[in-house]
Amino acid sequence: MKLKVKLYEIETGKPIIVLNEEDMKELGVHIGDRIKICKPENTCMVTAVIDASTELVGLGEIGVFEDVYRELDVKAGDIVDVRATKRPQSIEFIKKKLHGKHLHGTEIKQIIQDVVDNNLSDIELTALVVSSYINGYDMDETVSLTKAMVETGEQINFGENTVDKHCIGGVAGNRTTMLIVPILTAAGLTMPKTSSRAITSPAGTADTMEVLAEVEFSIQKLKDIAKDTGGFIVWGGSVNLAPADDKIIKVEYPLSIDPEGQVLASVMSKKKSVNAQNLVIDIPVGKGSKIEDMHTASELARKFIEVGHRLEINTKCLITDGSSPIGAGIGPALEARDVLMCLEGTGPTDLMNKSLDLSAVLLELSGKAVPGEGRSLAEEILESGKAQTQMKTIIEAQKGNPDITAAEIVIGPHQAQVEAKIEGKVKFIDNKIISALARLAGCPKDHTAGVDLKVAVGDEVDKGDPLFTVWAAHPGKLEDAVKKAKQTNPIQIGGLILEEVV
Amino acid sequence: MKLKVKLYEIETGKPIIVLNEEDMKELGVHIGDRIKICKPENTCMVTAVIDASTELVGLGEIGVFEDVYRELDVKAGDIVDVRATKRPQSIEFIKKKLHGKHLHGTEIKQIIQDVVDNNLSDIELTALVVSSYINGYDMDETVSLTKAMVETGEQINFGENTVDKHCIGGVAGNRTTMLIVPILTAAGLTMPKTSSRAITSPAGTADTMEVLAEVEFSIQKLKDIAKDTGGFIVWGGSVNLAPADDKIIKVEYPLSIDPEGQVLASVMSKKKSVNAQNLVIDIPVGKGSKIEDMHTASELARKFIEVGHRLEINTKCLITDGSSPIGAGIGPALEARDVLMCLEGTGPTDLMNKSLDLSAVLLELSGKAVPGEGRSLAEEILESGKAQTQMKTIIEAQKGNPDITAAEIVIGPHQAQVEAKIEGKVKFIDNKIISALARLAGCPKDHTAGVDLKVAVGDEVDKGDPLFTVWAAHPGKLEDAVKKAKQTNPIQIGGLILEEVV
Repeated sequence: MKLKVKLYEIETGKPIIVLNEEDMKELGVHIGDRIKICKPENTCMVTAVIDASTELVGLGEIGVFEDVYRELDVKAGDIVDVRATKRPQSIEFIKKKLHGKHLHGTEIKQIIQDVVDNNLSDIELTALVVSSYINGYDMDETVSLTKAMVETGEQINFGENTVDKHCIGGVAGNRTTMLIVPILTAAGLTMPKTSSRAITSPAGTADTMEVLAEVEFSIQKLKDIAKDTGGFIVWGGSVNLAPADDKIIKVEYPLSIDPEGQVLASVMSKKKSVNAQNLVIDIPVGKGSKIEDMHTASELARKFIEVGHRLEINTKCLITDGSSPIGAGIGPALEARDVLMCLEGTGPTDLMNKSLDLSAVLLELSGKAVPGEGRSLAEEILESGKAQTQMKTIIEAQKGNPDITAAEIVIGPHQAQVEAKIEGKVKFIDNKIISALARLAGCPKDHTAGVDLKVAVGDEVDKGDPLFTVWAAHPGKLEDAVKKAKQTNPIQIGGLILEEVV
Repeated sequence: MKLKVKLYEIETGKPIIVLNEEDMKELGVHIGDRIKICKPENTCMVTAVIDASTELVGLGEIGVFEDVYRELDVKAGDIVDVRATKRPQSIEFIKKKLHGKHLHGTEIKQIIQDVVDNNLSDIELTALVVSSYINGYDMDETVSLTKAMVETGEQINFGENTVDKHCIGGVAGNRTTMLIVPILTAAGLTMPKTSSRAITSPAGTADTMEVLAEVEFSIQKLKDIAKDTGGFIVWGGSVNLAPADDKIIKVEYPLSIDPEGQVLASVMSKKKSVNAQNLVIDIPVGKGSKIEDMHTASELARKFIEVGHRLEINTKCLITDGSSPIGAGIGPALEARDVLMCLEGTGPTDLMNKSLDLSAVLLELSGKAVPGEGRSLAEEILESGKAQTQMKTIIEAQKGNPDITAAEIVIGPHQAQVEAKIEGKVKFIDNKIISALARLAGCPKDHTAGVDLKVAVGDEVDKGDPLFTVWAAHPGKLEDAVKKAKQTNPIQIGGLILEEVV
């Protein structure tokens, strides 16, 4: 059916079009069904869900929302060809998983292809996520899922000596990527790092890097940057690596569930898509972190290594202490300042040490250092200033100011200090509460907001000593965060009580 | 935040509004979040999902789609108050079910309240449906679910002596309700029957009744009709009984799954909402029906009776032969014609007998007949013409033509006959294929379309004898149905082979 385009500048986060009710009857489609729109030259297609109109969109017209007209590149008055789509076959495969059955590789490939092509509705996608969460994916399914996610997205071969790292998250301030990339690329390795923006945390690595440089580039530009500098730190969402993953995460997020097989596939598909040969995965464990016990962490590590093996990615997992934040700053600008301080030789020692340890593993895995010598090589690169020089090169390549120093990073401007109410030794700093305070202060949207820790676990404090400073761009948000800080107990001092059981 | 209403005549099947991006930041909401809209007099509220605009909907405006402005009753230019809603607590309860845990009555009540109030997105609702499908509801949960669905909807007390029946479906032509209601109301019982329209079948009872009378009335009007006539046969969707059910079914339908607890709650909540004291449930079993084995049918029957017991509804289940269609006609007009023929004394004997058996149970349960005498009382009511007179009264109360006869029902007009290719005894008539043919012929939209069976199981036929007539409103649809009829084997004649296993 040929229809005339009417544009609606409404962004819905998913492709939606409106048809006239009579045309819908003619096409045999109902509200919520999917259709295929083809431009006359037949170059481009989009599948979209349908709303029904009787007057606004007339007979022979099609109302096109922003997500569709941008992807399809059509203008008002254009004629498009519209067809009903068949019920995607992958719904039957999703139902197999719902009934607890094993999925074959070809079935998983079809599901992921339909995810990428927008052939599945939120209802169908949620059925997939919930079924795979409850019934699980075995290793064969996980590997098939990973491969399908790689094959349905962009793949960029950054050549020999490509390394990558990943952290499963949950630890505030843990900005090691921004030190590891300059250290390893200074050593001659290639590290094309795509990172996430914050969703539930106060800052993602992409948000932090954005304080120093731009983080969205075309794939061609990224290839050029990597050729010139050996690496980059950009937002993964701007690159089309494993696009199925982003669509699946959109459904997982409101339910806050991560099916394990999906997590493995999500991480490993992105590494495979840039042809990483050596990979280190940081798995923080501890109270207040994503994983609280060693057994769960070891199990996950074993699975990452198995998937890596089957994808021919040489993978090593490090189970790290995730019981407290890493570094002093929590929030994009404060974390960027910590990173620059480390490069300048004055940064928080925990952030510096963790970054050196992770770098050491990749230097040894990739043959740049013999086993046992990785850490000293990493230290030499950092202390000699080679890492700092390399970071300036990367910042410049990503259109930032290469000469910026830690002291020049803009913070706040509004601030309030929270002090110790008793004297004693700092026992525990709660990742979750500190992150919540930083978010109340305006993170991640307000880059200059956040929490700056003045103490670390093990420090002795007197009553009235500063524990942390809250920074905010708006006085109201500062007030909200300080109020919450006083109601909660983000930093525990002294005492032997671990938890009150009521 | 006060916003000015802009109307968009777009029907989406769920409440959607559009906000300006800047207003969204101010409210702290994102695409997909829910908001609460209040009219100035604060009488009415609606929760709706959000689309974002930068130009179409200006700062201080709110774009309101049809589903919202109809429910909220606002006009263009009206000022409404808009607030962000908190993440509904019931998401945590849905996650409990997702993790296989038992839900308490208060938790189920909260979930159902949020379903009714539109506080849950498709993603969250699907998570509920899929989790409860995989992990199941126990009897306590099922009873809580049923009660919650009753309490969150309209409840109409039709007084003492209210009876009801339900059929779990799957058998073509099984239009017993339209005979049972006149028989039982003629006996002095009250039978306020709400029925469904076809979704995947060629005709629902509401579609069939619509051939004879109107099926959508206000609750007040239904009370008046019941008072005058003792009963009615209307579309359940027009009454607000157990509204949570309709919203849940919208999510189940695209996945074609029915969590058993949900089915029990769906049926029983509607019976409780009209204060039915005695209830009979028809569970057809057989090849090609919804349930194929006796064990599954008995288990389901036992659960219906248990839920009934706990809701104080005296419930009896009849497991019936569902291996072949009931009656001759399949399609709204053809089925209405069968019903009128039964009332006139010339209808298909299987439809007549089944209706009499079901009526007999309710006559005995409600004390209108002593045990063992129900069937003869039902026969007397039908054969004496009292049921026909009563049906005329009901049709007239529902604004139809009371004097219509079976011969006056409009069928077709296009027809084609399908004949036996071999001689022998009719072994099997496939419900699913016959239903599919009727749908291809135009059912349920074309009321006059359908399949009219000329034979029943056990009949001896010669080669060339008519097996069934296909009726259609459009020649193209007739052709589609006849083509399909020739490719498939809806009526099996002779032979001893039950199934070929390949």
